[in-house]
Amino acid sequence: MKALVYDGSNSVSLKDKPLPTISKPTDVIVKVTKTTICGTDLHIRKGDVATCQPGTTLGHEGVGIIHSAGASVTRFKEGDRVLNSCISSCATCEYCRRGMYSHCTSGGWILGNTIDGTQAEYVRIPHAESSLHPIPDGADDSSLVMLSDIFPTGLECGVLNGKVQPGGTVAIVGSGPIGLAAIITAQMYSPSQIIAIDMDPKRLDVARQFGATETIDSSKADAIAKVKELTEGKGADSVIEAVGIPATFDLCQSLLAPGGVLANVGVHGTKVDLHLQNLWDKNISITTRLVDTTTTPMLLKLVQSGKLQPSQLITHHFKLGDMEKAYGTFGEASKHGALKVVIDVD
Amino acid sequence: MKALVYDGSNSVSLKDKPLPTISKPTDVIVKVTKTTICGTDLHIRKGDVATCQPGTTLGHEGVGIIHSAGASVTRFKEGDRVLNSCISSCATCEYCRRGMYSHCTSGGWILGNTIDGTQAEYVRIPHAESSLHPIPDGADDSSLVMLSDIFPTGLECGVLNGKVQPGGTVAIVGSGPIGLAAIITAQMYSPSQIIAIDMDPKRLDVARQFGATETIDSSKADAIAKVKELTEGKGADSVIEAVGIPATFDLCQSLLAPGGVLANVGVHGTKVDLHLQNLWDKNISITTRLVDTTTTPMLLKLVQSGKLQPSQLITHHFKLGDMEKAYGTFGEASKHGALKVVIDVD
Amino acid sequence: MKALVYDGSNSVSLKDKPLPTISKPTDVIVKVTKTTICGTDLHIRKGDVATCQPGTTLGHEGVGIIHSAGASVTRFKEGDRVLNSCISSCATCEYCRRGMYSHCTSGGWILGNTIDGTQAEYVRIPHAESSLHPIPDGADDSSLVMLSDIFPTGLECGVLNGKVQPGGTVAIVGSGPIGLAAIITAQMYSPSQIIAIDMDPKRLDVARQFGATETIDSSKADAIAKVKELTEGKGADSVIEAVGIPATFDLCQSLLAPGGVLANVGVHGTKVDLHLQNLWDKNISITTRLVDTTTTPMLLKLVQSGKLQPSQLITHHFKLGDMEKAYGTFGEASKHGALKVVIDVD
Amino acid sequence: MKALVYDGSNSVSLKDKPLPTISKPTDVIVKVTKTTICGTDLHIRKGDVATCQPGTTLGHEGVGIIHSAGASVTRFKEGDRVLNSCISSCATCEYCRRGMYSHCTSGGWILGNTIDGTQAEYVRIPHAESSLHPIPDGADDSSLVMLSDIFPTGLECGVLNGKVQPGGTVAIVGSGPIGLAAIITAQMYSPSQIIAIDMDPKRLDVARQFGATETIDSSKADAIAKVKELTEGKGADSVIEAVGIPATFDLCQSLLAPGGVLANVGVHGTKVDLHLQNLWDKNISITTRLVDTTTTPMLLKLVQSGKLQPSQLITHHFKLGDMEKAYGTFGEASKHGALKVVIDVD
Repeated sequence: MKALVYDGSNSVSLKDKPLPTISKPTDVIVKVTKTTICGTDLHIRKGDVATCQPGTTLGHEGVGIIHSAGASVTRFKEGDRVLNSCISSCATCEYCRRGMYSHCTSGGWILGNTIDGTQAEYVRIPHAESSLHPIPDGADDSSLVMLSDIFPTGLECGVLNGKVQPGGTVAIVGSGPIGLAAIITAQMYSPSQIIAIDMDPKRLDVARQFGATETIDSSKADAIAKVKELTEGKGADSVIEAVGIPATFDLCQSLLAPGGVLANVGVHGTKVDLHLQNLWDKNISITTRLVDTTTTPMLLKLVQSGKLQPSQLITHHFKLGDMEKAYGTFGEASKHGALKVVIDVD
Repeated sequence: MKALVYDGSNSVSLKDKPLPTISKPTDVIVKVTKTTICGTDLHIRKGDVATCQPGTTLGHEGVGIIHSAGASVTRFKEGDRVLNSCISSCATCEYCRRGMYSHCTSGGWILGNTIDGTQAEYVRIPHAESSLHPIPDGADDSSLVMLSDIFPTGLECGVLNGKVQPGGTVAIVGSGPIGLAAIITAQMYSPSQIIAIDMDPKRLDVARQFGATETIDSSKADAIAKVKELTEGKGADSVIEAVGIPATFDLCQSLLAPGGVLANVGVHGTKVDLHLQNLWDKNISITTRLVDTTTTPMLLKLVQSGKLQPSQLITHHFKLGDMEKAYGTFGEASKHGALKVVIDVD
Repeated sequence: MKALVYDGSNSVSLKDKPLPTISKPTDVIVKVTKTTICGTDLHIRKGDVATCQPGTTLGHEGVGIIHSAGASVTRFKEGDRVLNSCISSCATCEYCRRGMYSHCTSGGWILGNTIDGTQAEYVRIPHAESSLHPIPDGADDSSLVMLSDIFPTGLECGVLNGKVQPGGTVAIVGSGPIGLAAIITAQMYSPSQIIAIDMDPKRLDVARQFGATETIDSSKADAIAKVKELTEGKGADSVIEAVGIPATFDLCQSLLAPGGVLANVGVHGTKVDLHLQNLWDKNISITTRLVDTTTTPMLLKLVQSGKLQPSQLITHHFKLGDMEKAYGTFGEASKHGALKVVIDVD
Repeated sequence: MKALVYDGSNSVSLKDKPLPTISKPTDVIVKVTKTTICGTDLHIRKGDVATCQPGTTLGHEGVGIIHSAGASVTRFKEGDRVLNSCISSCATCEYCRRGMYSHCTSGGWILGNTIDGTQAEYVRIPHAESSLHPIPDGADDSSLVMLSDIFPTGLECGVLNGKVQPGGTVAIVGSGPIGLAAIITAQMYSPSQIIAIDMDPKRLDVARQFGATETIDSSKADAIAKVKELTEGKGADSVIEAVGIPATFDLCQSLLAPGGVLANVGVHGTKVDLHLQNLWDKNISITTRLVDTTTTPMLLKLVQSGKLQPSQLITHHFKLGDMEKAYGTFGEASKHGALKVVIDVD
């Protein structure tokens, strides 16, 4: 089969690999029909993710069809259409029992990281019963592949951790795909204001289209002053960091209202300053989270009922054969006006 | 009347002042019977608290008797015994409505800070209906003065913010009075382990006496390794910072289990490092809080029912006339084996 | 001034009364500009509400202008536009501190019940600081009068008590004004299905218009079977009782999914059957509540930001002089296609 | 092997049965060392439980040693000491994901009900990975068998559902074993009062010994008046029904404070009256629950740390050979002063 492999030398390439096989009774093999590329895949390509060895098939998002199932799998059978979570969950360890699937002692983020992933014709999914979701007939596969990672991430790490609430004010720093997913899912909880902050006017246009009630180009305006002005001088109740660098984390701290929450979504590579001298008495919280994908079943219901349209994030489609080109497009997203690119494997 | 006044020149002294008078219909004047000294009073004496002007009577904790009450006060009348919260709350502003009395737009921490405080024979209490608590007959005043600040602070900023839970593990960095108040009140939620960490063996002895199940002298042992060992390699579910310096905040970050909470209680004067590169995917929270004293009525019930003995924190008693000596003793707490000192005004 | 008075003999009539005066420093007098009639007012007219004495001015909903304010009122001044909650709250008693304003020991539902109400040119509002809400310039008074009672009631007693959640299923029994308010506010939390159940096809049409995703005419269809069919055999996660008779409460019990919540909104005059033999092991909750109006500030923000349009409930306008006619129309709502009627006092 | 079998004719008897065998890769066979008898077993003996067929081995509580494990079981191996939950949980179905193991679509309460149970030398445990708990060395097996059902039931259905809180007031109607388990576990949350109500003075003595702060013999005193008197006229914040008949459920409704919770633990065979005419505006909740055993790992930690002594409920020990006598003793508990009886199978 064809698979997109991390070569270790700042490159990825499409290679031939043998079909994966069931190694535990709890595994299934999925024939992939759609997958996509995540910002994390770009990090791996750059060599930033130490856990991912050269030779690994990348990809942790996907929709497909059950090809074969291990002996103890009863929830799925050959031919069933499924969506995989980017997180593998045994469902029974201490962390899984608490809904922290990201910290599953025999799972977590392993697909396309420590084991072969979904950017291939077939993929082995461990802990299949608790890591796959059945897809209803008639659903749109491209839409659903957005539920493997980016929508649960925006929702869980951003919106839920940020305690977005009816009538509340939300500031989202960063309007890339993940910031946009937070903007979209924040609306599930009816805040009165969603303020998008970025330095790219085009992204801010998209943010407004997707539901931001205000946008701030922080390369031109004083974002702190502007957020204060929009919130009666208080700052935002929920501040979502969707970039992952010290400067944006710093900005976020200054946007917080007393009693607010700073929900970090960005992947950070270095330590940052925490201004406790200003924050110690401000009754705030700062939260971090690797997505647990606990909300995927709920998101599936909202997609099915038409209340959520994840396809609005999709700007490009590629065939598996054009995978390297897909990486090029997604890697230079700004140049190509790319948000999420879907790979049509079938 | 006699009042302990901040002189502005690194000193405090007992002076004569006129009796306070009712300036708003919501005020009451309380004849103080017991008060105490807080770490914050020492900060003011050093000149660290810019909001407190020389000439101000210090003190924000106290128990006393209603001397006179403003026209709109119906809950209290002359002669009633009352406990004052260190926080004044109007009860009706947006923050008070959310239980954030510390951010009351016309109150908060003002006693002994921006207005005259309780280390005096009489004190004016603004927003009296919502800032005073009736005291049942027969209660011990010395005990109750511990409910003005230190017990609610340990409980709200430490235990509640830290989400201490039955069966959970708690690490408390700092075994001064506030750390001890957290150790005592943590037991209200039945954690399976309370690990006290300090560099003073005498304080750790007290910590163990007050309910710590394990103690670590971090000047001698590797606190991180020891906490990991005590928690099956995971770290603590709740980590309470009760010191207020960068080094201890740093230590706290390393003690956190995945999914844990770092509840900051310490007063910080400078920024600190936040190791987001380690924490971004660890599903943790960091919380800050100025005590709101929302739990005072509940604490009063527990004291009344005998389930809580705040007097165990009291090591010394002084007369108001010996107030300066009391500051000396509390200011060199370690030398005197002092925890909390009670001032018997009556 | 003119006031609509309960005569005690199954009748109400417009009478002349002296202007109300400030009796406590916490009172204000409001010049009413808009009011409305509630189902409870009809109950009073029928003599069903023992606490309401003949001679009382009815009405607990209203928007107006501050005419005069008591000595301790600082939040409002003459000329300010305000919205009154149907519930008066002292903000400081034990219940108010817990957000249970409905059980305020010196307030609760007193307007138009135990003291004169808002269906008059002027009304005295006790505990004004915590029972009135400032109205932003430019807001539509008719819309806002819907926030005195019906919207908070639908939201608090129905939607919040019913734990309506993203992706969840909601069944609402009764599509009168209060059921419709629940249908509208349920959408703040993005359930995947809102099933409206009633026996009047016209009301069900309105329900669908206001956001019900499914409607069931229980006079024709088997509502239990139909709800099961719509919910994969499980029943609804949230069931809201918005009628107030034994038959509908009985129906609600049969609509509950395991783990579901039955939120009672209806006013009940008799005991009902509780089928514990079926429910004891079903992990369900049943909740009751008199509206606390804690959500009114949040609802104001949502109205201001355009996310909520309470005016969609208003079908008729009357002048204060036509008040008795207004009662007639609202009392025979079905005949007149009436939902809420607004009284333009100004 | 020997097994205690339900004969269907109001009798149970010890019989020879073949050893159970693994039928699914997720099963294990446990060699039972300790088991106990539950009130539900008596209900089965009487023929009250339609799901349990004659010929079934009874018992759903137990501690033992892994005899053999299915192919997909990795968490346990032969020789491991384990505690079984009375509830079997697949961990992956919709209900298990929500922590409602009692409603597991392929589990729930099946042991000693729809499949052979633990009152035998060996038992097959389905969904073993998520239905068994490892036992630490040195733990006391008799104590731990109390964690299979009675302690989680008292805690989850009573204390947690009843929202017992620090400083709160709790009334527990019924001081049988399950009421006592609620009294013991309520103390994990530090209420200020625990009021035990029963008609047997001996049980009330035990209740007081186990932590009740007040006891009421409702055959002699007016329980409603007495609870009001003890709670400043308000009633109890948490009311726990631990009997299961209409009269006690009725009493519970009258004991509720405004804003309180009635947590039903009793097994009810008939409908009851719900006094909505009194409760509709009282902001109360009524909850039901079949134990989910989600708290068992936490309870294990508290037992291990010495904070909980479940053995205090054990009054009698029997050998498996004397099982019928054990049923006799437990069936006439009052006569024998029996609380829980432990069967030493080994």
